[in-house]
Amino acid sequence: MSDPHASRLDRARAALRDRGDRALVLAPGPNARYLTGLTAEQSERRFLVVVPRDDDPAALAPALAAPDARDAPGLADDRVRTWRDDDGPHPALAAFAAAHLADGPGRLLVDDRLWASHLLALRDAVDAPLGLASEVCGPLRVRKDEAERDALRRAASVADGVVGQLRDRGADVVGTTERDLARTVERLLDGAGGEGLPFDPVVAAGPNGARPHHTPTDRRIEAGDPVVLDFGTRVDGYPSDQTRTLVFGDEPSDRVRAVHDAVWEAQRAGVAAVEPGARAGDVDAAARTVIEDAGYGDAFVHRTGHGVGLEVHEEPYVASGSGRRLEPGMVFSVEPGVYLDGAFGVRIEDLVLVTDDGCERLNRTPRGPETGD
Amino acid sequence: MSDPHASRLDRARAALRDRGDRALVLAPGPNARYLTGLTAEQSERRFLVVVPRDDDPAALAPALAAPDARDAPGLADDRVRTWRDDDGPHPALAAFAAAHLADGPGRLLVDDRLWASHLLALRDAVDAPLGLASEVCGPLRVRKDEAERDALRRAASVADGVVGQLRDRGADVVGTTERDLARTVERLLDGAGGEGLPFDPVVAAGPNGARPHHTPTDRRIEAGDPVVLDFGTRVDGYPSDQTRTLVFGDEPSDRVRAVHDAVWEAQRAGVAAVEPGARAGDVDAAARTVIEDAGYGDAFVHRTGHGVGLEVHEEPYVASGSGRRLEPGMVFSVEPGVYLDGAFGVRIEDLVLVTDDGCERLNRTPRGPETGD
Repeated sequence: MSDPHASRLDRARAALRDRGDRALVLAPGPNARYLTGLTAEQSERRFLVVVPRDDDPAALAPALAAPDARDAPGLADDRVRTWRDDDGPHPALAAFAAAHLADGPGRLLVDDRLWASHLLALRDAVDAPLGLASEVCGPLRVRKDEAERDALRRAASVADGVVGQLRDRGADVVGTTERDLARTVERLLDGAGGEGLPFDPVVAAGPNGARPHHTPTDRRIEAGDPVVLDFGTRVDGYPSDQTRTLVFGDEPSDRVRAVHDAVWEAQRAGVAAVEPGARAGDVDAAARTVIEDAGYGDAFVHRTGHGVGLEVHEEPYVASGSGRRLEPGMVFSVEPGVYLDGAFGVRIEDLVLVTDDGCERLNRTPRGPETGD
Repeated sequence: MSDPHASRLDRARAALRDRGDRALVLAPGPNARYLTGLTAEQSERRFLVVVPRDDDPAALAPALAAPDARDAPGLADDRVRTWRDDDGPHPALAAFAAAHLADGPGRLLVDDRLWASHLLALRDAVDAPLGLASEVCGPLRVRKDEAERDALRRAASVADGVVGQLRDRGADVVGTTERDLARTVERLLDGAGGEGLPFDPVVAAGPNGARPHHTPTDRRIEAGDPVVLDFGTRVDGYPSDQTRTLVFGDEPSDRVRAVHDAVWEAQRAGVAAVEPGARAGDVDAAARTVIEDAGYGDAFVHRTGHGVGLEVHEEPYVASGSGRRLEPGMVFSVEPGVYLDGAFGVRIEDLVLVTDDGCERLNRTPRGPETGD
């Protein structure tokens, strides 16, 4: 894509002016990347990116990250102030705050993920009311532009291909540990063109599947175990995120089949409810009702989905009662699940893109539990 | 190790009482893991662990993380309050704060890495002065007990073995991309018993080595390139972190050799300065002086080292002018580097453990740039 940062910055500053807020104060991370192209990550070394209402962005960067700041297309070299470890960040923060944050009315909107250590130092350096940067950045980031959609589609396609490869392995997977299978997933994603993991893969076999965010262990996968496989990769910085619950080396039991059918029906119902103008809560309700009607309502312990963009979890959240209206360009997961303590879990997740008249599924690999030939 | 959380909690509460502070308010992460054994990670879903001055720890957890909270040896089941996505976190936070945070004088010491989104919500729910949890947790965590030392030694040994394997590959590495070599490093670490990456490996060839925290690219490693290799793994939750700068497929040039010699001499000088009672700044100065005397002072753009424990970067920081006194049980890196813009970089890093009369190097693989036979 052509450099999109200039127009994004313009819109962010316009939003600050409209709201009467003073500036964004961002940590290295998704908001800063979206607005300036900075790809660094937050650390204990103080590194702030400021977007003042009426001026170009500026950064306070540790010296060793100065090249990252200079490489960011939205940060001019002469707007980057650096500090060295032997001086410490405090004098530089005071000067930086005086230059870019002290003047004007309104709030400082701090990055939602800014660490408390940095936030308390900022609070000591500038006397201003505080709010969250998501108030401004959220509405901008929630509607994906063409380049973002393209990256999300490609990332979903890479992950779908890996689901297919796992499915093809069938009974060969039996006896593998969850941890080894997670590593295999990573290698397959990498080999298929993925650019690294947006989150640690979930590989949760049998009773471990009852934990939605299970960390892979040395448990070996047994024939007939439902295995929750939730993983993603990145393309051009944008992640995929999808889940299949597969059974290797045997037929699913009747109980597994019944739960899987309910979850798949719920997932279809959720996706069918996605269209511009619908509420996020409607999508949650569509999926949740199916699971409640099947008798598993208490076992669906999480919201139905979350937005996906530069962050794997971002707006819009598809939660019960959410009145958030869906808009074209939004991308989020639809991922109902049922978690039966001590027994197993089933989750089915696809990403969807809201279109002008409905939605497009970004994940297209089959949803059934069957594997092998 | 036998469950160490009870004694750690006792010491943390004693420190709160001594300081007149009210409670620790932790995010899932290293402080919470140290004190309660909780292994979850921070996310946008509100999850707080509180250690009140005069009571057992308590947690506010999203329902889907309830099993993680229950598994934490330092968290009793009846002290975990959960909230579900369809209710949202606010009512539960209000009740939780009223039960565990509202009473008593003194500050709430918030996790240094608590996200601003959670901190501002906490500030709205409880009217109390704020400080940082590191004031209490730092002094406890900085002296590693026997079980921690053992885990750190084993992690260092795994990573050292992988350096040896890379060295053995010699000229075979030429033509590999940085990114592929990074993946190879991951696989080798995994195969040697590592439990995952504490940070993304740095593989920085030729001019890319001038960036201390370079992200691996598709640049192919050329014969004679100095390649900065900075990576680690985990054992029992504790990380390793070491750096070697290796040259594959050719002899190092005279210039590379000269810089490498200076950095290695600086690293030895830094390690030689480590003993109980010395100041962290003394270690930095010992290493820095060598590099300055060699004429590269301006090119050593970072501090000499950082503590390593449950976090890869923690106290004590080995920075210029630091008056922090070294104590037996501290573990930190000694990692001087020289970064020559447009040319190359050299860094050599080992972890050291402060002993009663000096220090023990946890990394033992040779430091020279030579590879192959």
